[in-house]
Formats: sequence, C-alpha cells, structure tokens
Amino acid sequence: MHPRLHATYHVRSDTRSIERRAQALAIEQSVEMPLAAIDDPFVRTEIVGEVETIAQKENGQFEVRIALASDTAGNDPGQLLNMLFGNSSLHEDVVLHDVELPSGLANFFGGPRHGLHGLRRRAGAGARALTCAPLKPQGLSPQRLAELSQKYASAGIDFIKDDHGLADQVYAPFEARVATIAQAVRKIDRPPGPARYVPSISGDLETMRRQIAMAIAVGLDSVMVAPMIAGLSNFHRLVREHPQIAFVAHPAMAGAARISPALLLGKLFRVLGADAVVFPNYGGRFGYSPDTCRALAQAAVGSRDYLQPCVPVPAGGMDTSRVAEMLDFYGAGVMLLIGGALLEAGAQLIEATAAFVGQVHRYPYVADAG
Amino acid sequence: MHPRLHATYHVRSDTRSIERRAQALAIEQSVEMPLAAIDDPFVRTEIVGEVETIAQKENGQFEVRIALASDTAGNDPGQLLNMLFGNSSLHEDVVLHDVELPSGLANFFGGPRHGLHGLRRRAGAGARALTCAPLKPQGLSPQRLAELSQKYASAGIDFIKDDHGLADQVYAPFEARVATIAQAVRKIDRPPGPARYVPSISGDLETMRRQIAMAIAVGLDSVMVAPMIAGLSNFHRLVREHPQIAFVAHPAMAGAARISPALLLGKLFRVLGADAVVFPNYGGRFGYSPDTCRALAQAAVGSRDYLQPCVPVPAGGMDTSRVAEMLDFYGAGVMLLIGGALLEAGAQLIEATAAFVGQVHRYPYVADAG
Repeated sequence: MHPRLHATYHVRSDTRSIERRAQALAIEQSVEMPLAAIDDPFVRTEIVGEVETIAQKENGQFEVRIALASDTAGNDPGQLLNMLFGNSSLHEDVVLHDVELPSGLANFFGGPRHGLHGLRRRAGAGARALTCAPLKPQGLSPQRLAELSQKYASAGIDFIKDDHGLADQVYAPFEARVATIAQAVRKIDRPPGPARYVPSISGDLETMRRQIAMAIAVGLDSVMVAPMIAGLSNFHRLVREHPQIAFVAHPAMAGAARISPALLLGKLFRVLGADAVVFPNYGGRFGYSPDTCRALAQAAVGSRDYLQPCVPVPAGGMDTSRVAEMLDFYGAGVMLLIGGALLEAGAQLIEATAAFVGQVHRYPYVADAG
Repeated sequence: MHPRLHATYHVRSDTRSIERRAQALAIEQSVEMPLAAIDDPFVRTEIVGEVETIAQKENGQFEVRIALASDTAGNDPGQLLNMLFGNSSLHEDVVLHDVELPSGLANFFGGPRHGLHGLRRRAGAGARALTCAPLKPQGLSPQRLAELSQKYASAGIDFIKDDHGLADQVYAPFEARVATIAQAVRKIDRPPGPARYVPSISGDLETMRRQIAMAIAVGLDSVMVAPMIAGLSNFHRLVREHPQIAFVAHPAMAGAARISPALLLGKLFRVLGADAVVFPNYGGRFGYSPDTCRALAQAAVGSRDYLQPCVPVPAGGMDTSRVAEMLDFYGAGVMLLIGGALLEAGAQLIEATAAFVGQVHRYPYVADAG
C-alpha cells in the first residue's frame, strides 16, 4: 500500500444518506467517476479514495474520514489542495476539517525556515511575545508611510508590516515605497537593533520574486504574502528559493467558512513554510471563536515532528487593553498586532505604541512558556 | 474623481444593523482602519470605500453596493480579488455577488483570446454546440489514457480534456502522458480534422510554463488550468504570454458558496482570458440551481464590450439523455462535457460517445442562436 493522506470532512446530512454521501465525497476527491466503470486493479486498490470512519456529531453534522492516495498530490501544494477539496469546495454541505499528511510529504515541504525562534532572535526578544504594527491606510505616499514607520520604530515595535492592501499602486509604487520605508526604519537607533520592516508582496510568481529581490537590495529579510491569492504552489516556491527570508502569511481569501481555519491557516501554511501567520482574533472584527483561535494557534506553533513553530499573529481590531488577556490565552509564543487602535491616538501615536510595547515586555511570562 | 469599481455584496443582517455593517464592509475592503484616524485628504476622498446603495432583499438579506478605488487594485488580478473580497472572505455573513469593472481595467485584462468563435473554428464546428469528454480516472498509465483518448476521438468528440486530478504524478508523469496522448489522438483521422487534446496544467507559474512549452512541442494548442489554485495573477500571466493557446478554466477551489458563481466563474475568469469555463450544471452532482447556471453562462458568453465570448462548459454528472434539454437551455454557444456516463458504457464506449456526438450534431439549432 502506497502512503495515504487522511482527510477529515464535516458533512451536513441525515443519518439515512450519510454513508452514500461519504462514499460520493471519497470518489469526488479521487477518481471522480463511477466505480463500476473502473477495471484497472491499481486504480481500484491504490487510487480510489476510501471512507475510513463516519462519526455523528452534534446538530446534523457527521465527521467523515477518508484515505486518499498521497501520490495523487505529487509534491505540489496546489495539487494537494485540489485533491483535498478542489471540487468539493463547490458543494455547500461540506467543510474540509483536517488532514494528516504522511511524514514524508510534510518533511518534503519542510515547514517554517525561521519560525518562532528565528523571529525572536532577529527581534532580540528572548522568550517574550513579539509585537507588530501595520502601515496603513493605503493611499498614503511612501513618505507618509515612512514617517509612520519611524514612530512605531521609536516606540519599540519589533515588526512593522505593510497593510495587506498595499501592493504596487500608482500613489505608492512598490520599489519607491519599500526603499523609503526601509531607510527610514533603519535610521531609528534603539536597542537591541532596528525594527524589522515587513513589506507585503503580491502579483504573479515572477513579480513577487522581483519584489523580494528589491526588498533584499534595501537590506530587508522578511516579507508578507497571502498564500491563497498567490497560489499555494507559488507561495511554497518562494519559501524554497529564499531560505534567508522570513515569510509572514496573510489570511486574505482564505474563506475560512469552508476550510477549517486551524487546518488551512495553522497547519497547511506552516507546513508550506510560513514563519508567522496573521489571523482574526476572537472578540475583534471577525467571527472566529476562542476555540477556533486556540486550535489555529496550536496547529501553527505546537510541537510537530521536524517542523519549526510558526508564530501565531492574532489581529483584527485588537487594542492595548487586551494585551494581558491575549498573552494569558496564547502564552509567550505569539506576535501581537495592533493597528487601528494605535492610529486613533493621532498625535499621541508614539506614546500609545510605547504603552502597547511596554505591556508586552513587562508581562510576567512564566519560565517554560511558548 | 479617479475610476471606481462597483462591488455588490449580499449581506445577512437585521434592518437595524445593516447601515453600520455596510459601512464596516466598505472600510474593510479599502483602508481597513477607523475613519477618524485618517487625516490625509486624498485618502479620505479617493481611497476610502463608499457605500452607494443598500437594498433589502428576501429573507434577511441586503444588497449593498460599494464604490472602491480602481487604483487600489493596480492592474493585478490577485490584488483585484484582494480588494474585492480578501478580508471579507473571512466573514460568514457576506457573499461577493457582482462587480462592475471600469472599462479600462477590463480592456487591460483583455478577456478570451479565442473564445467561442476560436474554439468552433478549431473544431470545424460551424454554429453548433461543441462536445468534450474527459480522460479519467487518475491512476491509469499514459498508454491506457491514450487508448481512451483514441476511442473518444474516433467517436467524433471535439475536445478531449484531462480530468482535473491529472497532474505530474509518478504513475503518469506530465511529459510522457501528454506526448503519448497527443500522438495517439493525432493518429485518428476523421473529418474535419483531429480532435483537440486539452491537457491539465498545474504547479507554480514556472512549472505551468514548462508544461505549456511541452504541450506546444507535441503540437497542442489548448490547456486547462484551475485559476483559483494557480492564483489569478499567474493564470492571467499565462494567458498574456501564450496568445496562441486556448485556456479552459476549471472551477476547483472556487468555493462558490462565498463568491457568486456567475461573477467568479463567468465574469472574472472571462475578463482574465478564459476561452472556456467548466462549471457544475444544475441537476448533476453539484447543487447549482438553473438560475445560477443561466446567470453564469450569460456572464461567460453574453455580449460584452470588446470581450470575446467565453464558452460555458456545464458538467458534473451529465449524460446523453440530457443533451437536448441542455441545448434548449444554453443555446448553441456551449460545450457539452460528459464523463462518467460514457465510461460506464465499458466495451461500448465508442458507440456511447458517438451517440452523444450525434445528438449534439443533429440538434435543430435555430439560425441566430449562440
């Protein structure tokens, strides 16, 4: 028997129909044709998806576990997603809940190249949580964004990231913007070293490569990318081609209602090499529950054979009053990102940012955390 | 005022909250921060998303139309999707329903390079509907797939496409598979010329380019790609780089519950250059309604300034008994795709395929259709 993936789906169904529905799902995600019309013995034993278990959950949901042939995904991340959920993403009654990859495949992808430990080293952060603030709104000139980055930097923020809306736009073209901001941030001298500026890259694979080259040319070593917009195969190729670069993954277009956030943003982005992953924290602008956020963070940063931990970055409407609560919840292996709430401080931005930074630095971390 | 996109969302809300929710949506998809903290006059007037109308629909749904600055998307398809729905895809209460692109942007992308007229010319099909059959299941050797392609070809099928599960797998590597099948199909001599084999390409941008080069090297002029897995920017780049190639778009990972199928599969794939688009027909394995399918087909093939028509390919559990009904419904400007139902004929595959082809050829098309 060749290696198998084990995919778990949550399916809305009645008890009478679930067995047939599960079987249809196994066929849709493997051979996509009537079994009776398959005479090839290799296909029948090795390729056809196999329903392993069906378990009833609450309110009309069933958990269906299906074994899929690992060879159908080859070693390509996009094809992996295609075999896990390509056609079934068009069905409204099913959510892709989880997947167990054979260790050979996870090792081939290799996970974060820097992860929690690498980002902490770069920030000189020891064992504490990391801090992050965003450059926004889009529409500002490179100079205005650079001024904002200097305020964050002088208040002691570890990572300063582009808003995911910043791309290569006429009012702030990528090359001019990134060069201006990188230089501005470097001018702010403070211990243990300058803040890290993380530009957002976008476009097709070749455009993203060119943007990474520009970032490297002005001394940067981290970028942000939205893997579901870039295409998972392209995201992972960038990770392989740039081992010195730390990659922050953004959740745009992750349409989390149909793929479990813990699986897609936590587990899969990590396996493909995200060093940190931004996601909507509970109690903010988005509807994720504390349970979802805990599972996502655990999938990103928890112990996993051979894979570096990926830093969870809960965000989306956070403010400084929530820092202690978030650190209680996530532990020290986390990066906190506050945006709008700092910007609302207006002329007091530096003081507001310094207060955020101070809260994170002074939190009573327990010795063995994260 | 710079050019604007007009995006329409369907939002689940109560009457009391809809105005605030619509405003939050306009901010999420533009500046993503509190308006009070924005002092830049250009950003306030040109970049902040603007709620244009809110209309109540049935059962707790509202239609919200928002104007977004076209410049925020630049000319990049992935960034366009990011500005239309990137963060809001994480919200469960909202569906991206439609978008009006400024004509400059649609013209820049350029739409299908071949479309309905080009594919009909290649098939020598005159004004009738086109036929298509799939190579499956994955797991078969190149030789077995080639034998299957010869049967379809000798029965008179216009286009023979790879199943979207076929990629670059150990049991049928891309190069060997495509060369073997291309040669096999070419051997079947029949009027008005050989069938067109359409291989499925996958992987990152560079891998897909290499696969297209291999396809061209063995005399092919069409490929299939799943734009939501490849990344829209990469899909469009391939279209631009290969004006001689016809592109068939596959709906894998189009997660249609959250973006209107007519918008994503019909309108956007067409604008970006899909010459034909496969989608789940009503009454098959997937849950699309006749209204959804009609709107999708209309968006793909209907008259549109300066854009070639993109061929709708309704599929997913169709059989020959439905040919007349589908031609009544879609008209002649369509490609019919039947898979499993032909393969179930086993030893009678050629006869079953010829019956499908005969139905399409003999249908009484009205002179002005499609």
